[in-house]
Amino acid sequence: MKKIKIGVVGLGRLGRKHAENVAFRIPNAELLAVCSVIEDEVKQVQQEWGVPYGYTDYYEMIKNKELDAVLIASPSGEHCKHLEAALDAGLHVFCEKPLGVNIEECLNAEKAVEKHSDKVFMLGFMRRYDASYAYAKKKIEEGYIGKPILVRAYGLDPESLVEGAIRFAKTSGGIFLDMAIHDIDLARWYLESEPEKVYAIGGSYLHKEFGEFGDCDNACAMMQFKNGTMAMIYVGRTAPHGYHVETEIVGTKATLRISSVPQKNLVTIYDQNGAVQECVSGFVERFEQAYLNEVQEFVNCILEGRKPSVTVYDGTLSTKVAYAATEAYRKNELITID
Amino acid sequence: MKKIKIGVVGLGRLGRKHAENVAFRIPNAELLAVCSVIEDEVKQVQQEWGVPYGYTDYYEMIKNKELDAVLIASPSGEHCKHLEAALDAGLHVFCEKPLGVNIEECLNAEKAVEKHSDKVFMLGFMRRYDASYAYAKKKIEEGYIGKPILVRAYGLDPESLVEGAIRFAKTSGGIFLDMAIHDIDLARWYLESEPEKVYAIGGSYLHKEFGEFGDCDNACAMMQFKNGTMAMIYVGRTAPHGYHVETEIVGTKATLRISSVPQKNLVTIYDQNGAVQECVSGFVERFEQAYLNEVQEFVNCILEGRKPSVTVYDGTLSTKVAYAATEAYRKNELITID
Amino acid sequence: MKKIKIGVVGLGRLGRKHAENVAFRIPNAELLAVCSVIEDEVKQVQQEWGVPYGYTDYYEMIKNKELDAVLIASPSGEHCKHLEAALDAGLHVFCEKPLGVNIEECLNAEKAVEKHSDKVFMLGFMRRYDASYAYAKKKIEEGYIGKPILVRAYGLDPESLVEGAIRFAKTSGGIFLDMAIHDIDLARWYLESEPEKVYAIGGSYLHKEFGEFGDCDNACAMMQFKNGTMAMIYVGRTAPHGYHVETEIVGTKATLRISSVPQKNLVTIYDQNGAVQECVSGFVERFEQAYLNEVQEFVNCILEGRKPSVTVYDGTLSTKVAYAATEAYRKNELITID
Amino acid sequence: MKKIKIGVVGLGRLGRKHAENVAFRIPNAELLAVCSVIEDEVKQVQQEWGVPYGYTDYYEMIKNKELDAVLIASPSGEHCKHLEAALDAGLHVFCEKPLGVNIEECLNAEKAVEKHSDKVFMLGFMRRYDASYAYAKKKIEEGYIGKPILVRAYGLDPESLVEGAIRFAKTSGGIFLDMAIHDIDLARWYLESEPEKVYAIGGSYLHKEFGEFGDCDNACAMMQFKNGTMAMIYVGRTAPHGYHVETEIVGTKATLRISSVPQKNLVTIYDQNGAVQECVSGFVERFEQAYLNEVQEFVNCILEGRKPSVTVYDGTLSTKVAYAATEAYRKNELITID
Repeated sequence: MKKIKIGVVGLGRLGRKHAENVAFRIPNAELLAVCSVIEDEVKQVQQEWGVPYGYTDYYEMIKNKELDAVLIASPSGEHCKHLEAALDAGLHVFCEKPLGVNIEECLNAEKAVEKHSDKVFMLGFMRRYDASYAYAKKKIEEGYIGKPILVRAYGLDPESLVEGAIRFAKTSGGIFLDMAIHDIDLARWYLESEPEKVYAIGGSYLHKEFGEFGDCDNACAMMQFKNGTMAMIYVGRTAPHGYHVETEIVGTKATLRISSVPQKNLVTIYDQNGAVQECVSGFVERFEQAYLNEVQEFVNCILEGRKPSVTVYDGTLSTKVAYAATEAYRKNELITID
Repeated sequence: MKKIKIGVVGLGRLGRKHAENVAFRIPNAELLAVCSVIEDEVKQVQQEWGVPYGYTDYYEMIKNKELDAVLIASPSGEHCKHLEAALDAGLHVFCEKPLGVNIEECLNAEKAVEKHSDKVFMLGFMRRYDASYAYAKKKIEEGYIGKPILVRAYGLDPESLVEGAIRFAKTSGGIFLDMAIHDIDLARWYLESEPEKVYAIGGSYLHKEFGEFGDCDNACAMMQFKNGTMAMIYVGRTAPHGYHVETEIVGTKATLRISSVPQKNLVTIYDQNGAVQECVSGFVERFEQAYLNEVQEFVNCILEGRKPSVTVYDGTLSTKVAYAATEAYRKNELITID
Repeated sequence: MKKIKIGVVGLGRLGRKHAENVAFRIPNAELLAVCSVIEDEVKQVQQEWGVPYGYTDYYEMIKNKELDAVLIASPSGEHCKHLEAALDAGLHVFCEKPLGVNIEECLNAEKAVEKHSDKVFMLGFMRRYDASYAYAKKKIEEGYIGKPILVRAYGLDPESLVEGAIRFAKTSGGIFLDMAIHDIDLARWYLESEPEKVYAIGGSYLHKEFGEFGDCDNACAMMQFKNGTMAMIYVGRTAPHGYHVETEIVGTKATLRISSVPQKNLVTIYDQNGAVQECVSGFVERFEQAYLNEVQEFVNCILEGRKPSVTVYDGTLSTKVAYAATEAYRKNELITID
Repeated sequence: MKKIKIGVVGLGRLGRKHAENVAFRIPNAELLAVCSVIEDEVKQVQQEWGVPYGYTDYYEMIKNKELDAVLIASPSGEHCKHLEAALDAGLHVFCEKPLGVNIEECLNAEKAVEKHSDKVFMLGFMRRYDASYAYAKKKIEEGYIGKPILVRAYGLDPESLVEGAIRFAKTSGGIFLDMAIHDIDLARWYLESEPEKVYAIGGSYLHKEFGEFGDCDNACAMMQFKNGTMAMIYVGRTAPHGYHVETEIVGTKATLRISSVPQKNLVTIYDQNGAVQECVSGFVERFEQAYLNEVQEFVNCILEGRKPSVTVYDGTLSTKVAYAATEAYRKNELITID
């Protein structure tokens, strides 16, 4: 069996998860190399999992002629440089979201991908590869819900993790770029159109610290799409019950609602509180399988000479909308996206 | 509009509820008289609701020539005597469950009812008149589930009310007569047959006091019906979450499950516990509308010259099965019901 | 027991329901008179329910000196005239929504109510009196959810009733005035503030006929409130599954979601489709008890010398917001409400 | 990283799944060999996945000195011979359920395991390794539900697969051995005791063919355990909605219910049927991750010198109970298990 040899850059929580998946859970892939600026991380992973090559310099790693592909989980500010260099080095690229930290970077990324159209490029909008989200898409493609007319999407981080978000507030780009971008991608994907008008509101209702950076802890955006359809997005950082990602697609014939209760598992507890379903604690717990599926799809695309459904343009367009929502929120105005 | 004039005997929690329903919520009925051995109760209800007649002696009340019917909510030990006297006095009778406290009483009640076949007699198996239970019956009658083959029924009282049950333990007749009788009636109703074999087990797992009276705090019974169908019943007095009555009817084509979560209302609370549905606290809260519906049906039957679907025989037969379950539990044997 | 004597004007579906409730289900009320321009309706109701007085002329009815109060369920265009005349006649008034068909009418209604401040005036925002909605309000008042920051409200009519809506489209005032006004009232009630900015979008996705009248079949509105809180409203006329009214109140400490599934009853059906909960078919089925509760509250207010929580101003303010949403939708602009 | 080298015998649906898991999803394991009497299966798997060794003779395979362990997924009648030979050959053994096809075989298996107490032996009761089942066990061990007093377990195969069950009816051992054994194991595990009395009933309600072999298509069993606790089990082969495995553990302080709706995924569909959750189609779909987890645990036990929680005795004891239930059903008697 042909195995795609992959190098992973970035060994933070998500990078490590990706590396582990490549190493052990993707039959037709091999974790050939890992790279991190923290040398100890590299050594530890190499030893623990028997990874042949380790690097502290990304540009050294991509010179490795045995590599077929890289998986980029480095800090957001590095994504564009890393993906361009990898493509130029003749490698297939899987890149974590966001594509870039501003539109210029995204447009540069587009050019790099276009220049290497023989290479597979994929962006990590993992929700599309979650079993339930993929199932909804399939139902829609089969015509089951008629024409999709509205997407309602919630993306809520748990209050229990808010301290990290506060520390990250200065550089996160704000709640729309940091969080809503996933929901924006989903709305675009399900509605098969691009937002044209966006209005957004929000506030720092519980944690004033976000306000100091022009950001907020809970926010809503409403969008009109070019094909006349609609999206309502709610993102927040203070959910008391856990990590709540919920998406609803209203169609002219049926409606699909994904994860109305972000259930931890299939257990219902009947106790003095009533009938209780515990909730997932974070994105890794919720989307563990999706993180695996997306990289599996990336590898399959390489092997089968296909292109994945998430393109570089999805990255640019979602970023553009997130910027427009941020502007709408900051100016308290309706923004037209050009 | 012709109004049925009703006298209510027994002004405890349930009797009072019935009286209130007759007085105010049943268009074609009138609360003509109330009766209780506690004179103050009688006076209070008369004054508050403007009830024409009040009695402390039941036998005086049924002499009242204006009366069309009585509603018996007196202590269980009085039911049979009260219903017989009322029928003999030419009155229609609605009688709270249980029909009698032993089989002999039930058989006497049957005779009294048969003697007055021109009168409407109805037994208070209110669950049959709950919207969801009635809906399930209708679905079954329409053939939607094919042939019903199994009824699973739960009847659980909340731990918060256990003190009352302990005080009542000596005279309650045990958990099968006191509680499971409703579930037995439902199983008979949905399966359209009579139990032939019953095995029962249980224990005083939390409150040893029940054991002192040959009773228990949680118990299960399994029954084989004459038509080959099955029932599994679970009754308990220690539910931490509230009053939990749940019934499932498995058919060859579909299954109906009623009240898998005994929800208090339509609110889901997302809090630090997860996604929570609060539960109903007791039988009056759960079956408030059913208590009204059954008496409305009683009144309609009188006015329309019909007989209700709950007959005196349902009382006898369910009692018989409850006794057999009690015997099975006490002897730890499989009991054949003759 | 003192009974409030009520005259009901309008004997359409809802007026008849109100009349029936007054006649039979509200202990301390009496249906003294009914009024409709259709004489047969009046006669039929009088005969069937034994109503003492019948009228085809509203202004005749309110001259009846035995009356304490009127319940107005006449066509929307008559509401303001009817309520003013009744107040001037010394009667308490319960008025179905909408308060008026334009702001001027609403302001006139306010003046009439203010002139007769000794009278009870109540507007029929019945959702506030639904057990689940009232429970949510209570939870909020107790501080359980912290500070409410977002209301999401759905008000969806079933596709099965769309023909009626199409016929009514010309005069309905549009989807925001006709339908969203309930959701607007709820958002105002739960957030305890008034909307300041509103953006709205929508379309005639399934039934082009609505577009001919400047209306649409599905629409969304997003609002920023003066206290910085948010609301997202979705209204539609094409729900395939039934009548779907759902409301969520997100707070800083907990979230309450009301009726995520608009269940018909407590039965879950397991069949070849999966696990199915059937849904309610329309507003009368869903809010039957709320329609009763609100009139009961009206009567209690009269008897106890209290004022109900729904005031005439709720009518004006909700109407104002509905107009602003309509304007936002028609101009595709963000509207500031003065 | 040390990898456990495993040989898999049996390449049917489940055997192939196990082999695939060992090959690709268990980091510290390696699929060294596969064995099947069907040579083509062996060759295909070897080629497709690059498996070093292939056998058509199991006894040849276990001579391979590179092997650390075998995974037995051969026909049930071979299990005991295969496991004994493997243990004698110095290999660790993972054996699919059932342990044996009669008690004698099970006792022989016990002896073989006891003789090689230095080897890891594990039986494939995979449900214990499902995330929700394991979570319930953890909650119980933490004391959250107080003392467990009742297990209710459902194990229902979909009607869509009944043809296979009919063909298999002659040799399946009957519904209790074939299906309820999983539920029996769960009840024993959660209640921490052994059944002492069992009564069982059932029927061939939809498919008379089962009756011809003394079997049935739906059956119930009720059991009293030595520690006084209770179990109610319902197994069936005609579920219209899919594969329905549901388990409830009632405790003195709380109740846990696992998978009340055997949901296919997190999507709720609102369509003309109502609010619908589609259901899983079969055991592989439902327990895919559990099949992986159990073998991962097997491998971890080998590497860490631990013994798994499922022992050979669990196999014998559950089999014994399944036989007793079969006897109870066939004789329509209460059976005491010695």
